[in-house]
Amino acid sequence: MSRVVMKFGGTSVGSIERMRHVAGLVRAERQAGHEVAVLVSAMAGDTDRLAALVKEASGRNPNVPLREYDAVVSSGEQISAGLLALCLSAIGAPARSWTGWQIPIHTTGVHGKARFTDIPASDLLGAMAKGEVPVITGFQGVGPDGAVTTLGRGGTDTSAVAIAAAIKADRCDIYTDVDGVYTTDPRIVQKAHKLEKISYEEMLEMASLGAKVLQTRSVEMAMIHRVPLRVLSSFKGLGAGNGGTLVCDEDEIVETQVVSGITYSRDEARVNLLQLEDQPGVASVIFGLMADANINVDMIVQNVSRSATQTNMTFTVPESELKKTLSVLTGNKAKIGYGDLSSDSNVVKVSVVGVGMRSHAGTAKTMFQALAGKGINIQVIATSEIKISVLIDEEYTELALRTLHTAYGLDAPPE
Amino acid sequence: MSRVVMKFGGTSVGSIERMRHVAGLVRAERQAGHEVAVLVSAMAGDTDRLAALVKEASGRNPNVPLREYDAVVSSGEQISAGLLALCLSAIGAPARSWTGWQIPIHTTGVHGKARFTDIPASDLLGAMAKGEVPVITGFQGVGPDGAVTTLGRGGTDTSAVAIAAAIKADRCDIYTDVDGVYTTDPRIVQKAHKLEKISYEEMLEMASLGAKVLQTRSVEMAMIHRVPLRVLSSFKGLGAGNGGTLVCDEDEIVETQVVSGITYSRDEARVNLLQLEDQPGVASVIFGLMADANINVDMIVQNVSRSATQTNMTFTVPESELKKTLSVLTGNKAKIGYGDLSSDSNVVKVSVVGVGMRSHAGTAKTMFQALAGKGINIQVIATSEIKISVLIDEEYTELALRTLHTAYGLDAPPE
Repeated sequence: MSRVVMKFGGTSVGSIERMRHVAGLVRAERQAGHEVAVLVSAMAGDTDRLAALVKEASGRNPNVPLREYDAVVSSGEQISAGLLALCLSAIGAPARSWTGWQIPIHTTGVHGKARFTDIPASDLLGAMAKGEVPVITGFQGVGPDGAVTTLGRGGTDTSAVAIAAAIKADRCDIYTDVDGVYTTDPRIVQKAHKLEKISYEEMLEMASLGAKVLQTRSVEMAMIHRVPLRVLSSFKGLGAGNGGTLVCDEDEIVETQVVSGITYSRDEARVNLLQLEDQPGVASVIFGLMADANINVDMIVQNVSRSATQTNMTFTVPESELKKTLSVLTGNKAKIGYGDLSSDSNVVKVSVVGVGMRSHAGTAKTMFQALAGKGINIQVIATSEIKISVLIDEEYTELALRTLHTAYGLDAPPE
Repeated sequence: MSRVVMKFGGTSVGSIERMRHVAGLVRAERQAGHEVAVLVSAMAGDTDRLAALVKEASGRNPNVPLREYDAVVSSGEQISAGLLALCLSAIGAPARSWTGWQIPIHTTGVHGKARFTDIPASDLLGAMAKGEVPVITGFQGVGPDGAVTTLGRGGTDTSAVAIAAAIKADRCDIYTDVDGVYTTDPRIVQKAHKLEKISYEEMLEMASLGAKVLQTRSVEMAMIHRVPLRVLSSFKGLGAGNGGTLVCDEDEIVETQVVSGITYSRDEARVNLLQLEDQPGVASVIFGLMADANINVDMIVQNVSRSATQTNMTFTVPESELKKTLSVLTGNKAKIGYGDLSSDSNVVKVSVVGVGMRSHAGTAKTMFQALAGKGINIQVIATSEIKISVLIDEEYTELALRTLHTAYGLDAPPE
């Protein structure tokens, strides 16, 4: 017998009909002899509807009490958890809904962005031991002052991992609307295939590089607590055809690929500062200004320019922050001391990720050669131990993904 | 300075626009120097929507866990309380939402029909003392096992009175979609007028006799705890034009009328059992059967019949229970021992209510004469210390109400 946490997102519990399917999946796990705890998001659309009411009620109030945002929005999961417990009961599986404050899932008091502090497991374990399925509200907990807190959007993945760690679950299954983690976006590369296993480190890179399957924070937490995480489809049944992808310790993956996946992010803009005075401290001035303006800078490259006393600086920011970035830079032109400023938002960041890189030379060379072979110009390069990212012209996105997918031997064999 | 509880029903908080109006009323009470606590129902339609989801999720489950009904449906007030707190904050009135479990409003564990056991007041009083408005979820509390409980439909009136008693409020104002308690239904009798004051006892009779303004249970509780209750319109502003009706101790009403109000209920059916054996125990057989079938019997009259050994029995039941009643009676014909059975659901119960009756003779005579004068036949009569009810043919409802309203001198003077 093992202990399993099953997490279902908003689409998976978007209607009573969908909940009945989910209840069937939960019952099947129980009938297979496992102890099961369930985490649910709000029904698809509910959180948006509630957030819109909060916005309307707040009007132009400059000091919206976030405590009340949490009080209102957290009711979405309270509803879905109760309804799923009813669906389980209707098919003969004893179940009970649990809110964050009932367990209680203790968090910090930062409304809208709370973090877990402590989750006592004894009540849940007691319920599971007597055959009951706890259906737990995701995305929320209770703060030090007894107010309901929320974790921020997508927090239910993180709630699921936190509960799995607290009850020492053998596995945390994240049911979603895709059937696993793919080598790359299958809507773009037809030959993309589902990965059977992927390491925490790789998943973390892929999640933060734009693969939307899992929340970065949940992968981090799973890695820290060594909770095996499985991503699978809530639209299929259990069994052979729905094995999903297991996110686990690197050691458990027998045959690692050099590159496991290729991701991309279109939400990028490139900024170039030309004829910068090449003197100590210039970078700290620029990125200090960016930090003060709360702008997230990603790739940074500094080049020598033709002049011995000048340099060029290139970096990327989220596309949505470009306007603010340019305004900060032009507003501080004298302080920074640059000659010219240019920018481009028609760029995409393409990344190859794989723990195998650590032990294989030539991974970068393969990438650069493959892109060069298609006439794709690389604008910026950034690397980490298990990742190489390049910034290229956005119109080459699909070509680059297909080319790299083939170059790293990831194409699925023909059926 | 006095301490006031303000209660707003579903229509009064049915939209953010309506909530803004309510927030204005609350702020005005605070600015008048009062300490204010607010009780809210769910936004109009929300409870029905949530109850429908519960029904859909339960399907044909014969053992629906009512705990989950409460978990789901109680979220309606959580939403409206949070939103009203946001509306108050937006107009500069510090406010905070409180759920039943946060106060905590302790109740019995009977889901869907919980009763209050204990309400600690210190946290609320502390918040009010520092100028904050607690916005409290009506209709709910928390049971002995930590599960959310609800009180049954319309329970927010009762919640408001319970909170008012707990914090020793000087007044509990029930804001609703009518502007007070009327001498009779103003949709039927144009000359009906609003009562300035009415005693608890009269209000209790009127509420249980069909006047829908207040929940019977809330009036009972107000009477026990001597909480002055005011019924007024949430669609008007505060002040002279919106005094509402004060439900208070009889002693506080200087000039009592013999009759304060006239109510009616169309949800009645008359049952006649003829040629009953006139022997001890026959009534206990009949009404024992009714009680076992969970049928609420109201008026009961036993007459002698022409035969010395036989009698006739007449009683009323809610119209919706008539079919079941007849089936119980015919199924037990031999056991009861009657000759004939007849019934009529085209009847209405008209009642006159007034504490003045206690000291005035002739109240009943006025009623019977007035009805006889219009040719209205009285089928059944029932009386209590402060009430006379008659059962008449339904088609005389309007005529009877207008006639009695005039006969007891209740007609409003011409403008």
